Amino acid sequence: MEPLLIYDTTLRDGTQGENITFTADEKLKIALRLDEMGIHYVEGGWPGSNPRDIRFFDLAKRERFATTRITAFGSTCKAGIPAADDPNLQAILKTGTPAAAIFGKSWPLHVEAIMGNTLAENISMISDSVDFLKTNGLEVIYDAEHFFDGFKESPEYAVQTLAAAADAGADFLVLCDTNGGTLPHEVDAIIRSVKQALEKQGLDAGRMKLGIHTHNDCGMAEANAVSAVNCGAVMVHGTINGYGERCGNADLTTLIPVFNAKMKHTCIPEEKLCGLKSLSRFVSETANIVPLNSRPFVGRSAFAHKGGIHVSAIMKESRAYEHIDPEIVGNQRRVLMSDLAGKSNVEYKAREMGVDLCANGCDSKTIVKAIKQMEDEGYQFDVADGSFKIMLEKFTEQFKPLFDLESFRVTIEKDKDLPCSAHATIKISVDDSHEITAAEGLGPVSALDNALRKALGNFYPDLDTMKLVDFKVRVVDGRDGTAAKVRVFIESRDHDQIWSTIGVSEDIIEASWQALADSFQFKLAKEARKNRSATENPKTKDLKLGWSMSCNA
Amino acid sequence: MEPLLIYDTTLRDGTQGENITFTADEKLKIALRLDEMGIHYVEGGWPGSNPRDIRFFDLAKRERFATTRITAFGSTCKAGIPAADDPNLQAILKTGTPAAAIFGKSWPLHVEAIMGNTLAENISMISDSVDFLKTNGLEVIYDAEHFFDGFKESPEYAVQTLAAAADAGADFLVLCDTNGGTLPHEVDAIIRSVKQALEKQGLDAGRMKLGIHTHNDCGMAEANAVSAVNCGAVMVHGTINGYGERCGNADLTTLIPVFNAKMKHTCIPEEKLCGLKSLSRFVSETANIVPLNSRPFVGRSAFAHKGGIHVSAIMKESRAYEHIDPEIVGNQRRVLMSDLAGKSNVEYKAREMGVDLCANGCDSKTIVKAIKQMEDEGYQFDVADGSFKIMLEKFTEQFKPLFDLESFRVTIEKDKDLPCSAHATIKISVDDSHEITAAEGLGPVSALDNALRKALGNFYPDLDTMKLVDFKVRVVDGRDGTAAKVRVFIESRDHDQIWSTIGVSEDIIEASWQALADSFQFKLAKEARKNRSATENPKTKDLKLGWSMSCNA
Repeated sequence: MEPLLIYDTTLRDGTQGENITFTADEKLKIALRLDEMGIHYVEGGWPGSNPRDIRFFDLAKRERFATTRITAFGSTCKAGIPAADDPNLQAILKTGTPAAAIFGKSWPLHVEAIMGNTLAENISMISDSVDFLKTNGLEVIYDAEHFFDGFKESPEYAVQTLAAAADAGADFLVLCDTNGGTLPHEVDAIIRSVKQALEKQGLDAGRMKLGIHTHNDCGMAEANAVSAVNCGAVMVHGTINGYGERCGNADLTTLIPVFNAKMKHTCIPEEKLCGLKSLSRFVSETANIVPLNSRPFVGRSAFAHKGGIHVSAIMKESRAYEHIDPEIVGNQRRVLMSDLAGKSNVEYKAREMGVDLCANGCDSKTIVKAIKQMEDEGYQFDVADGSFKIMLEKFTEQFKPLFDLESFRVTIEKDKDLPCSAHATIKISVDDSHEITAAEGLGPVSALDNALRKALGNFYPDLDTMKLVDFKVRVVDGRDGTAAKVRVFIESRDHDQIWSTIGVSEDIIEASWQALADSFQFKLAKEARKNRSATENPKTKDLKLGWSMSCNA
Repeated sequence: MEPLLIYDTTLRDGTQGENITFTADEKLKIALRLDEMGIHYVEGGWPGSNPRDIRFFDLAKRERFATTRITAFGSTCKAGIPAADDPNLQAILKTGTPAAAIFGKSWPLHVEAIMGNTLAENISMISDSVDFLKTNGLEVIYDAEHFFDGFKESPEYAVQTLAAAADAGADFLVLCDTNGGTLPHEVDAIIRSVKQALEKQGLDAGRMKLGIHTHNDCGMAEANAVSAVNCGAVMVHGTINGYGERCGNADLTTLIPVFNAKMKHTCIPEEKLCGLKSLSRFVSETANIVPLNSRPFVGRSAFAHKGGIHVSAIMKESRAYEHIDPEIVGNQRRVLMSDLAGKSNVEYKAREMGVDLCANGCDSKTIVKAIKQMEDEGYQFDVADGSFKIMLEKFTEQFKPLFDLESFRVTIEKDKDLPCSAHATIKISVDDSHEITAAEGLGPVSALDNALRKALGNFYPDLDTMKLVDFKVRVVDGRDGTAAKVRVFIESRDHDQIWSTIGVSEDIIEASWQALADSFQFKLAKEARKNRSATENPKTKDLKLGWSMSCNA
């Protein structure tokens, strides 16, 4: 069986979702991750509508994609203008992508009442636009916007628009449920009628490749896509995490495992499926959207068991309450209200980091309890390996601080409409030496970062190689207004490693300080290890720690 | 057509969801709301498993329900024990509910490997338990747990278990997709087979009422319920907001409008449908779970439009991009501002807010350009209506500040391991008066908020009613470490309105100040309007502005 083609539109339709925006660089990172996953098409944006999307296509041009065909989106040309003169179609050509998706109207309501065109004009617009792109050597994906609504009102006209695109050479005819109001049994019935009608018009069934593009306004986006595939659709449109306008698009993190694992209709290579949870998290982190715990397959709760009966049953036989092995999609089982699951996680992680949990008479149960307490307060160690290592060392009394804070004071001043100014004074000690200094910054945390760096620089010249590359703030509980608890993540890197640290407090400066201090302690401990190992065995290169990989993930 | 029966299990299966718990009193409040909505059955809990559920049934006994039949949940009796002696079945009887739901095993894997019973024992357990409850005058809903998994493995046995329940007099046979791994076309095929098999066994088709109980592990909970109804199921189980174990149960806030409004298969009285959004919010508030914006029909984003093309179309014809009138379910349309938006979004929004865009010779094109520029810098107006209004007023020179900042200074100090302390000094002017004051806070923004509130309090006593309810920080571009640009959102409320404001800067305090200042300006302008209208026409009540509705949504 031919693999089902997956067409991702996270970067275009996904950004129609409330609160979803990506910079051109972020779009590129996501596109590369989608390629890694084996997604066949990635719709990068609408080059005719804004400069950011044009920049994305410029960036993408310089990259090599193993599987993914980067696709530019646009509309059919305007009435009365030759397709070759249409700036929107020209912008698509300029991107240099191998494939283009253009949408056209299928519903007389839109053609006449909204666009003010005649039905015949619309047919020419579709036909001319597809023909123009095909003549210029592009693969053409024709998006029949509002196809199902159009078909319900005027089946003959809706089919005519498809036939126009097919006659002009469109490679795929994608039926869009733009408003998301269609139900699975309707999708089924309509696609069967469409296929008959197209065949009646003498169109070559072999060339007719149907696609499906669905929205979730009735909670049916994924079910509608499954319905279409059961009727022979060969291309499925969707977004990662179902991001999209209103109630979102079909969620590819649901559909991919449904196709691959449940329906045995392969879409991406089997061995890539275990990267799905990590892809889902990567996209939600990039969008800075809190991941949905209950998301099928990839959510944190997707394999979480609460009921006592369920837990004892899965211990005997996992399929008793799990429809699929969570590891297939890179997720894991969680047993709620039980220390068992946590203990093995912590032990696994400590081993990976080279921290001896049983040192100094500690036991891992006590540590698990403390971690649960901290996670309850807002810490999240699964994305802050640097702080997690330091915390394990503190618990087992193996932590050796490479500097101590004596005190700091940060001041931010503002006069009328002038921008704020921030400066920090800091006093630290290293062994028995003290250092007090001050620095400015673009804000309080930046001032504190600069001051700490300056103070430590006298003791540790190696700090030059360290850079803070990411700084994220999230409110853990928004209920108390500006006194809410915040969680700060800092990602730092040097020439060979990336590490993340975390701080939690009601005071954003306190939380930032915790993450900042951990990040510097981590770097300094790393350099100390390196110097020790160079002294002990000058020929051994610093071994890259396993967990640095998981920091990157 | 008989109305489709809705069976709510928010209070039982819903509480299996991670982080979902209700007290007995909260359960009662929810049950009363469900009754108001015209829900036919409300499963209150499992009286045999915990004292809280017993208390709920005691409370419920004292209330009068107009439509709802309160239902007690339990399992079939244990093997070898007469049903009459089973404490779990006795607990059901003690609740005094008119109806009981009991679950039994359909899947040999569970009967044998998990429960350690023989297949024949299981059949007796089902039959005896149903018979016992019927003899005691209850309506009996039989939940065939894991029915679809059982049927896939052993169709004959699965049907036998149903026949046992039916023979013993069960009023409803509910087919449960307990693990949520079944797809809609499988539900369809299996139910059709089951009906044939039951009829072959000579069961009276008129008495056989089928129900459906689905979970969302494949994102198909609602589609599976629709599929079952299309095959003749007359009872649908689900929870409000789809709360439930793992990925949740079928979401009744989706299914009810799908049945009533899309399939024209009435389940609740037509006139009650408009209470759906409010019911959804009530349950999420009671569970203290942040409502999901993208939830079909009832979510805040369910009818939110971002793309410029979409907005200009809905202004001509709402069904162009809306599959249903939002008011049918008590929701409303929202037009979002973003760089994907065009002139029509701005004009729509300005009209809604009562700002005259053409005042002082401005034109909306210039404003759109400026908005796009600001959004490029990190502003995001789709979620900050308060700041958007102030910005429109500033552009059109209609903004009248109700206070001016002279200066502030915020200081954060930390000594060794002690927590940070923060205090702020602020000087403001109102007309020609100055005020200087200082305050502490749990962090710099909280200190600034407290100081500003204190300074303004002398001029505007109405400020007491205003509360900051949410504070969100997002790094717009993380590439520059701690000097990254941040975006701060603040949500504020008083007794009748919620509004959001935004600030963007490389300095988090500057960004917070912008959002904070806008929030206070917004509130003060609102009070000023109120006072003016009271003076001009003492009998006219303050007209609620259109956009206050959308702020609240």
